[in-house]
Amino acid sequence: MPNPTAAMLVIGDEILSGRTQDANTNHLAKALTERGIDLKEVRVVSDEPAAIIAAVQALSAGFDHVFTSGGIGPTHDDITADCIAQAFETPIDIRDDARALLAAHYASTGRELNAARLRMARIPDGATLIDNPVSIAPGFSLGNVHVMAGVPSVFQTMVASLLPSLTHGAPLVSQTVKLFKGEGDLAGPLAELSDSYPDLSIGSYPFQERGIYGSNIVLRGTDAARIALAADALRAQFQ
Amino acid sequence: MPNPTAAMLVIGDEILSGRTQDANTNHLAKALTERGIDLKEVRVVSDEPAAIIAAVQALSAGFDHVFTSGGIGPTHDDITADCIAQAFETPIDIRDDARALLAAHYASTGRELNAARLRMARIPDGATLIDNPVSIAPGFSLGNVHVMAGVPSVFQTMVASLLPSLTHGAPLVSQTVKLFKGEGDLAGPLAELSDSYPDLSIGSYPFQERGIYGSNIVLRGTDAARIALAADALRAQFQ
Repeated sequence: MPNPTAAMLVIGDEILSGRTQDANTNHLAKALTERGIDLKEVRVVSDEPAAIIAAVQALSAGFDHVFTSGGIGPTHDDITADCIAQAFETPIDIRDDARALLAAHYASTGRELNAARLRMARIPDGATLIDNPVSIAPGFSLGNVHVMAGVPSVFQTMVASLLPSLTHGAPLVSQTVKLFKGEGDLAGPLAELSDSYPDLSIGSYPFQERGIYGSNIVLRGTDAARIALAADALRAQFQ
Repeated sequence: MPNPTAAMLVIGDEILSGRTQDANTNHLAKALTERGIDLKEVRVVSDEPAAIIAAVQALSAGFDHVFTSGGIGPTHDDITADCIAQAFETPIDIRDDARALLAAHYASTGRELNAARLRMARIPDGATLIDNPVSIAPGFSLGNVHVMAGVPSVFQTMVASLLPSLTHGAPLVSQTVKLFKGEGDLAGPLAELSDSYPDLSIGSYPFQERGIYGSNIVLRGTDAARIALAADALRAQFQ
């Protein structure tokens, strides 16, 4: 059976303006690769309802899982939860269990659970909460869309809470063969190797080290024995 | 007149597997922001023709400019140029001017211009070359799609070659106001500020410093005087 597929949706003007570099995609990509869920697409969209809703609908229809990051805090630009509800044409309101989590948290820290913070208890009907041990305000899953915070420490803890509950496949494994040959000299042999191992993904990543051209050849697949065979064949040819 | 809009398309399994962290998006985002071109969406897709072609067509139709990175080297997994040609239903072949650039370069470095390297001279009909002072193999623009290399040093030099030729708008400027208040306490006032300055984008980014909660409030727009007014109003309220 093929591995489940996934897409990531990053919501945030701060990435698009270049102010912030997105770190959540790389964290999720590694975690999914380890669990055998194939990340096939990433989108970054601006904090505009039409852009968020269209992306959620397209990705939810196209992939087994969609993971979002960003836009679920207490401020006016935090519109992700409402956009998800709209994308699924589902009502959204403050939910008792989410409110109870926040009430206990703010009572214990002596801060006020005001109207802005209460917005973080807005959860679409039918959603399942995602645990947030770091800052308590929960994420949620609705259908195949998993909605998480943008702050990296919170995003990471939500991914850790969520992933064990998802059906997974065979972990993707890889081996890298480092060759001091330019890509142009390796291209022919790599194409032949790729034809002989159609079950592997073979990527070539050029580098320059002290003026010498080289390429890291990355062999990826779910069968470690096949990867070892292909890596040995490549080394025998060039090392 | 509103600023031109743009999308970025990153082609690369190595980003989706988590092996590599994409650095080109952040570089392009900053360069576009400085030039008054609004980056509205980023997509990362795998090295699969159907995924690349669909993304090129969707983004080319939706935005004034599309910038791609990755997949234009000499190896079997470098399929971007052919996918762009297919997306535009345009023929593609080795072009004399691109071949001449490569021939001169490889002659001067004593390396062979073999069949694999010649693939880098495959340019869709009607495209304009993008200069590559770093490693010579050119990028190209076809319609509103600008096709560049994935290696960051080459991507950056191609962006520098390309941007001066594009119509641009008013540069986006920003001011950040750092407040030692949690987002939950700022949310009400920020919503009011956003209502008073509908021409500005006002984002809030929480942080924690030595146990104290705070928020960086980023005010963005094209009119520096309006941004200064809004920033002063915010400071007067909280500092």
